[in-house]
Amino acid sequence: MLLLTVVEMTLHIIATGGTFEKHYDEISGRLVFGESHIPSLMKRARVSLPYTFETVCMLDSLDMQESDRLKIREACAMSPAGKIVIVHGTDTMRETAAVLGKAAFQKTIVLTGAMIPCEFDHSDALFNLGFATGAVQLLPNGVYVLMNGRVFDWERVRKNRREGLFEEADKR
Amino acid sequence: MLLLTVVEMTLHIIATGGTFEKHYDEISGRLVFGESHIPSLMKRARVSLPYTFETVCMLDSLDMQESDRLKIREACAMSPAGKIVIVHGTDTMRETAAVLGKAAFQKTIVLTGAMIPCEFDHSDALFNLGFATGAVQLLPNGVYVLMNGRVFDWERVRKNRREGLFEEADKR
Amino acid sequence: MLLLTVVEMTLHIIATGGTFEKHYDEISGRLVFGESHIPSLMKRARVSLPYTFETVCMLDSLDMQESDRLKIREACAMSPAGKIVIVHGTDTMRETAAVLGKAAFQKTIVLTGAMIPCEFDHSDALFNLGFATGAVQLLPNGVYVLMNGRVFDWERVRKNRREGLFEEADKR
Amino acid sequence: MLLLTVVEMTLHIIATGGTFEKHYDEISGRLVFGESHIPSLMKRARVSLPYTFETVCMLDSLDMQESDRLKIREACAMSPAGKIVIVHGTDTMRETAAVLGKAAFQKTIVLTGAMIPCEFDHSDALFNLGFATGAVQLLPNGVYVLMNGRVFDWERVRKNRREGLFEEADKR
Repeated sequence: MLLLTVVEMTLHIIATGGTFEKHYDEISGRLVFGESHIPSLMKRARVSLPYTFETVCMLDSLDMQESDRLKIREACAMSPAGKIVIVHGTDTMRETAAVLGKAAFQKTIVLTGAMIPCEFDHSDALFNLGFATGAVQLLPNGVYVLMNGRVFDWERVRKNRREGLFEEADKR
Repeated sequence: MLLLTVVEMTLHIIATGGTFEKHYDEISGRLVFGESHIPSLMKRARVSLPYTFETVCMLDSLDMQESDRLKIREACAMSPAGKIVIVHGTDTMRETAAVLGKAAFQKTIVLTGAMIPCEFDHSDALFNLGFATGAVQLLPNGVYVLMNGRVFDWERVRKNRREGLFEEADKR
Repeated sequence: MLLLTVVEMTLHIIATGGTFEKHYDEISGRLVFGESHIPSLMKRARVSLPYTFETVCMLDSLDMQESDRLKIREACAMSPAGKIVIVHGTDTMRETAAVLGKAAFQKTIVLTGAMIPCEFDHSDALFNLGFATGAVQLLPNGVYVLMNGRVFDWERVRKNRREGLFEEADKR
Repeated sequence: MLLLTVVEMTLHIIATGGTFEKHYDEISGRLVFGESHIPSLMKRARVSLPYTFETVCMLDSLDMQESDRLKIREACAMSPAGKIVIVHGTDTMRETAAVLGKAAFQKTIVLTGAMIPCEFDHSDALFNLGFATGAVQLLPNGVYVLMNGRVFDWERVRKNRREGLFEEADKR
């Protein structure tokens, strides 16, 4: 019983790409994806909490297909962890959250991302990763979108694309 | 009743100095304190949650006197907010947490800081501020120390100075 | 006579865009151009040398037309300065350098740029701006491309696009 | 003859410490010296010019003794390079420059440094390293102090400590 609790509390972090991870490729002059920055950011943050890490895909969330979302769902199902942070593009974060919300896992799953790639001077990525690492440990089972310093239920959130902010929405 | 709840959920952030805030003074060649960096970091993080901000002192926590801790306690008492984040030096974070813990406020008060000043390339400050902003919204009333990606009860934490990490300690 | 010398030594900096200046637009998720970063970088560098600054265009150098190069040539002609730094995209830096070289100004004109936008953590932009600010003061009249820590004559340089490095080329 | 020219043009970079190199030690909470940052900055700047690198000491220039300056002079004498960049603390840069100036090497030797350590967000270090890498290739034999975007003769420079700027001084 104690063991079960310990296992459930384990933190798993899943990289899927998104603005958070975008890297400037100096040969092509374009923003591309490379290795995830998450492990080095967690080291920079001097996180002593044990966690596991996995890259499921490295995509702009506008390019994500249903099959990609199913792979993310599968990764959540396969992980023994009860606490899961998914770093995801902001444009379809809500869609992936819905796929996970409908799966009704007995886990706490949070999605976060960034408006500015983490390699930039003034990125919000590190704040958001910290916010997610804190909130995932404390939220009850369920699926949440964490952006702009706020916790949103997966059923009641939308991205206001014009302002670049997440806000509450009517339940779908 | 609803109003009361809203008021209680308001977030208040208190700057007290610490490594988090240290600024390099190019004339003296020393690390000094200036204006708090917190408001600009919250803006960088695109936080849309309303919050108030106050600077109580700007001190290395090794230089804090009992009178400074009482001023911090007073600031917590005076704020109408039910959720308080205190950015504090790491060396005596535990001592200030104890002063606040013993005051038994009906509020959630979290203390965080940084091992590397936020002006440095590889600082943990922004992660910790994000962690605190998330955790303070979700923790029950009480006083907590948040460092290294973990939530510590104020009665069960110590800084391991040799390793520069916070860790659990026996209850005092 | 003395006045003439002083006038000729004046430094003029011309922004034209290029990777150096690219800015991440969080609404569109694309790299775009905004205000030039050069004045704030010169301030950051604590440059006490007097200089004037002008933005001629804000373009990816692959999008530059002959008319844009003529505007840059005009700006060089109109400036009373004898020392001119042009911050330019790397892809057609050589073409603009040729337009300026053929104009045979009695001035020292240097072109530099960056492989990584200056807003990125690991950009070469600030180094290159420093290199150009130093070299332009010391080079004899002529047109030069300054990249990768080297001084290239405008007639003997090409960008090796595969490696992302400038190198010497046969005289054209 | 050709070989001699090539040898003379070789660039040698000497680290001696100074604000440029200061590193924040998270255990002691103080600015200390570690490994030189110069090799990684030169890599970041994508410098393709060949150069050699040496650390002679790692000191705050206020702590430099005459014996340290003699070691720097010895390093300049021993290097086969005709172009030498010395990264040095600003407070006694002038004193070391005088030791080197009086040695009357048939070399171009430039001293630069930084007002803000290179690990800080808004440091001038990378600009100054770029400035020095450009200027050293173009200046005639002699000893120069390069700060604030300007070239100073070693005999005619002083640091204005109140303003944190280098300025011309009467010849000593």
